[in-house]
Amino acid sequence: MIRKIYTCFSPLWYPLFQEYGKTVVVIDIMRATTSICAAIAAGAKAIIPVGSVEEARKAKEEGYILAAERDGVILDFADFGNSPDAFTPERVAGKVIAYSTTNGTQAIKMAADGNKNVVIGAFVNVSTVVKYLKEKDEDVLLFCAGWKNRFSLEDSLCAGLIADRLIKSAGFETHCDSTIACMDLWTLAEKDLIAYIEKCSHRHRLKGIVSEESIRYCHTLDVLDVLPVLKEGKLVK
Amino acid sequence: MIRKIYTCFSPLWYPLFQEYGKTVVVIDIMRATTSICAAIAAGAKAIIPVGSVEEARKAKEEGYILAAERDGVILDFADFGNSPDAFTPERVAGKVIAYSTTNGTQAIKMAADGNKNVVIGAFVNVSTVVKYLKEKDEDVLLFCAGWKNRFSLEDSLCAGLIADRLIKSAGFETHCDSTIACMDLWTLAEKDLIAYIEKCSHRHRLKGIVSEESIRYCHTLDVLDVLPVLKEGKLVK
Repeated sequence: MIRKIYTCFSPLWYPLFQEYGKTVVVIDIMRATTSICAAIAAGAKAIIPVGSVEEARKAKEEGYILAAERDGVILDFADFGNSPDAFTPERVAGKVIAYSTTNGTQAIKMAADGNKNVVIGAFVNVSTVVKYLKEKDEDVLLFCAGWKNRFSLEDSLCAGLIADRLIKSAGFETHCDSTIACMDLWTLAEKDLIAYIEKCSHRHRLKGIVSEESIRYCHTLDVLDVLPVLKEGKLVK
Repeated sequence: MIRKIYTCFSPLWYPLFQEYGKTVVVIDIMRATTSICAAIAAGAKAIIPVGSVEEARKAKEEGYILAAERDGVILDFADFGNSPDAFTPERVAGKVIAYSTTNGTQAIKMAADGNKNVVIGAFVNVSTVVKYLKEKDEDVLLFCAGWKNRFSLEDSLCAGLIADRLIKSAGFETHCDSTIACMDLWTLAEKDLIAYIEKCSHRHRLKGIVSEESIRYCHTLDVLDVLPVLKEGKLVK
């Protein structure tokens, strides 16, 4: 059976797309889903996505290790922030981490609220995501976290890359304008992704807050062979 | 002063963008804003954008000439529908037309609800729109009507064309990811717009309902030198 691909640009749009796609790939390149991949690859037992700042504080009080940021800045009561290189094996191996960010963890929580398979996608694990989606006989919703409910170029480029690979292999199609737009944008970016993302507003928002090395890492393909999946409210391998 | 450009992909997003841009260009290529340009060019005195089907019925009862459609189909109590070629001088010259469509007139009504300059943009009048925006010393919000609150390729391409022309002339800049995406999509489409729009989902939705000639007309640049503007709830020359 031909499987369909849909792309949702932000949490605000998610109610319109909720009916589409039994499998949801949440994408927040800078930096939640990149960091979740890094955390799982570093041996974290599980990541619990946490919504509000208040819930993050509660998780910390309950004894969880807390990774949390807002607008790129580490919350003062958190153990560390949202950079993929913060999730070192020393900090996270074998542990359950509570995790709260401006955009990504909100999107994961929305996707979790329904009878869906929720997986975590990023440039760093894109081939693993694509392999999983090919094996599943299900429609796919690519759910970009965006920035404060707006459209983000970098998330959309990753959605475009995933859709492009699925459609080039047999068994997938799309009639969704937002998916088509992402695929076309990816054709413009793929030759030099690092150069292309100089256009992204979020890349400039994070200048001075996040290291250049960390930004480059977020836009590097296939450095991690992990697929974080949501099980009973927790992201696990 | 450098003026800024923002792009809103659908009415659902408009509350997030409402604060940006003193001048709003509403874009609904297939077909509301194309048809409004055609109506004004054909000599219509004014177009009154009407929201719901009930309001459209009321306008008809009040004696207005009514142009109205939903999902591409003419409402049975309307005088005619939403095709640009329906707005002939014989029908509309010197007259006030009430107009209600699935997406476009809703967006116009949202944009009208605030202290903004609201103008109507389409491929058919794009140079006239760009000339007006260059003359105004104001930030610009490109408001795509989309399709049922979702993203539409054809509206975004027109937004990309307008943004591209403004930025290539002096005095405009953008740091808005949705505007950058539209401009990049336009670079892919501009060589052969008619071929490109074969990708658009709405183009396929309208197949068999709308003539091929009418679709081509909607994607032809600069056939009309008109700028419909909103004044006291009415679109006039």
